[in-house]
Amino acid sequence: MRISLDAMGGDHAPRTTVEGAVETVNETDDIEIVLVGDRELLQKELKRKHYPPERISILHTTQTVQMDDDISTAIRRKKDSSIRKGIELVKNQEADAFVSAGHSGVVMATALLLLGKSPGVHRPAIATTMPTLTGKFVLIDAGANVDTEPENLLQFALMGRAFSKRILGVEDPKVALLSIGEEDTKGNLLTKEAFKLIKNTDINFAGNIEGKDIFVGVADVVVCDGFIGNIVLKVSEGLADTIMKMLKREIADIKTGKIAYMLLKPALRNFKKKTDYSEYGGAPLLGINGTCLISHGRSSSKAIRNAIKLANEFAKQRFYQKIIEELSRYRDILSPQQQPEPVKTT
Amino acid sequence: MRISLDAMGGDHAPRTTVEGAVETVNETDDIEIVLVGDRELLQKELKRKHYPPERISILHTTQTVQMDDDISTAIRRKKDSSIRKGIELVKNQEADAFVSAGHSGVVMATALLLLGKSPGVHRPAIATTMPTLTGKFVLIDAGANVDTEPENLLQFALMGRAFSKRILGVEDPKVALLSIGEEDTKGNLLTKEAFKLIKNTDINFAGNIEGKDIFVGVADVVVCDGFIGNIVLKVSEGLADTIMKMLKREIADIKTGKIAYMLLKPALRNFKKKTDYSEYGGAPLLGINGTCLISHGRSSSKAIRNAIKLANEFAKQRFYQKIIEELSRYRDILSPQQQPEPVKTT
Repeated sequence: MRISLDAMGGDHAPRTTVEGAVETVNETDDIEIVLVGDRELLQKELKRKHYPPERISILHTTQTVQMDDDISTAIRRKKDSSIRKGIELVKNQEADAFVSAGHSGVVMATALLLLGKSPGVHRPAIATTMPTLTGKFVLIDAGANVDTEPENLLQFALMGRAFSKRILGVEDPKVALLSIGEEDTKGNLLTKEAFKLIKNTDINFAGNIEGKDIFVGVADVVVCDGFIGNIVLKVSEGLADTIMKMLKREIADIKTGKIAYMLLKPALRNFKKKTDYSEYGGAPLLGINGTCLISHGRSSSKAIRNAIKLANEFAKQRFYQKIIEELSRYRDILSPQQQPEPVKTT
Repeated sequence: MRISLDAMGGDHAPRTTVEGAVETVNETDDIEIVLVGDRELLQKELKRKHYPPERISILHTTQTVQMDDDISTAIRRKKDSSIRKGIELVKNQEADAFVSAGHSGVVMATALLLLGKSPGVHRPAIATTMPTLTGKFVLIDAGANVDTEPENLLQFALMGRAFSKRILGVEDPKVALLSIGEEDTKGNLLTKEAFKLIKNTDINFAGNIEGKDIFVGVADVVVCDGFIGNIVLKVSEGLADTIMKMLKREIADIKTGKIAYMLLKPALRNFKKKTDYSEYGGAPLLGINGTCLISHGRSSSKAIRNAIKLANEFAKQRFYQKIIEELSRYRDILSPQQQPEPVKTT
């Protein structure tokens, strides 16, 4: 597979993106990478690195989207950005997937603009993988949509299930709806309606799940509106950071702290490995006509490497077409939004 | 002040509630407590405990609301519950405040039914206190309301500010709106409208805050819809639990783990103290005609003790009347929901 990589995207790009690309081609034998970005900068990063040269190429671009760029301005004014050119490769079938640790809003909007929604999809969604006590779960939507409709949540459930099953290898994924109580009747207007819709399908539906239970591992897929999903993702990230900082401070404050910290190091390393987002690589944007993965802005070379490998997996399976097939099976339930509005007679 | 305590509410009641009450009267000299619940059980718990007997009394009730009781059924069928009788004491001015670690939904609904909303309040809200790296912040609404309107969020901002200022002693509290990006234009329909409303007041408005920043301590008050607030609260609780469990497991798995753990104990104790919800006692239900605090179901005697002391503080200040005064200053902005709907002329 040929992966198009936004080599300029991410807090530590292009160092980490180039490193990630080089590591990937050295570790695998079926992945080819197009580094999209400033040729001069990229060539400098590639210098003195060992890799099979026929498997890494450069597509030169003159513009870079900054993290604080306004989405619509970036799309209008930066037509030669690494994001746009990288996605164009997928559109023109010159690449099988696109990976970016850059401005996620611009990536989403550009992917939607150039590749388009898949037939039958109301709204594409971001599916992110998060660790639990016993494994991991898929959170969908993690921020692509706000103000969603119940039908959107049903589609997120179907897309998330397909991700869990086909990519993460869970046989019959348990899908739950993020809410404020386990009982069927708990929730807001959106989740109460979505609950009924999901219940009426063959989804292995675990019902409502409360925030405190998502990390316990009772559900393989947790479904929610993107506003809430993004807040859950960010709150989790912020809290995990804060807890580790507070713990380190407390450890530094006690007399036996230094020794304890030294003795602890392997445990902290294991913990970090299990909870590190970079292990999961990236979050796919599901429901578009093509494979597109969004990585964390803080991505290390390892995160980039894992994102490329995950993108490769999605592309090999032609996963986005599986989504189309999957959704088409539920056409009867999902039809309302696609039918034209009834003509008003009064 | 006289505090009415739901002595039957909470996972470890009435042991923890009675212990909490006894500890409180022994530590203070201006608090009197009415234990509301089963007289026989409470007398058994009180036996062999030392305390000034004139400061703890019992109001006998024959029913207890269970945690899995349906709210409307509990309200209809359990008219002699410790929750209802406890709140009636406040209504009849036989107590100055009510504290419960029982079924929070039933407490809220009963308080609303018996005490009513304060004049000018659209929707009462739960204000909960959470720890940050440097101190704490107030999250409002933490679960009293779902499907709120922008005006509700403005009222939450005003009530949360009053809590932060008058009870927690923050001089000019920084208020932020929980959203998915810092820019003014980020958010969903609800928060975008609320943003404009809050911006037009004298509130020290920090704008939108992302989930990752709430624990850093940049805002004293974080405002959101109760559906989201409850999820944030529960996700935080669940994640903190999970992180500690994972860390302990990793520590147990390494050779030097036992020694490290022993050396760490004082640090872990300090960490726990700083992050323990029981330090904060309880979450006030703001916007009702009276003082009512909701404690965590898992409340220890210490959590109960801190909740009683916090309730005492709210009652002494007649805080609920301060809310009425505060909201009345914003009558012009807040009027829409209270005016009758305009008559349709077309």
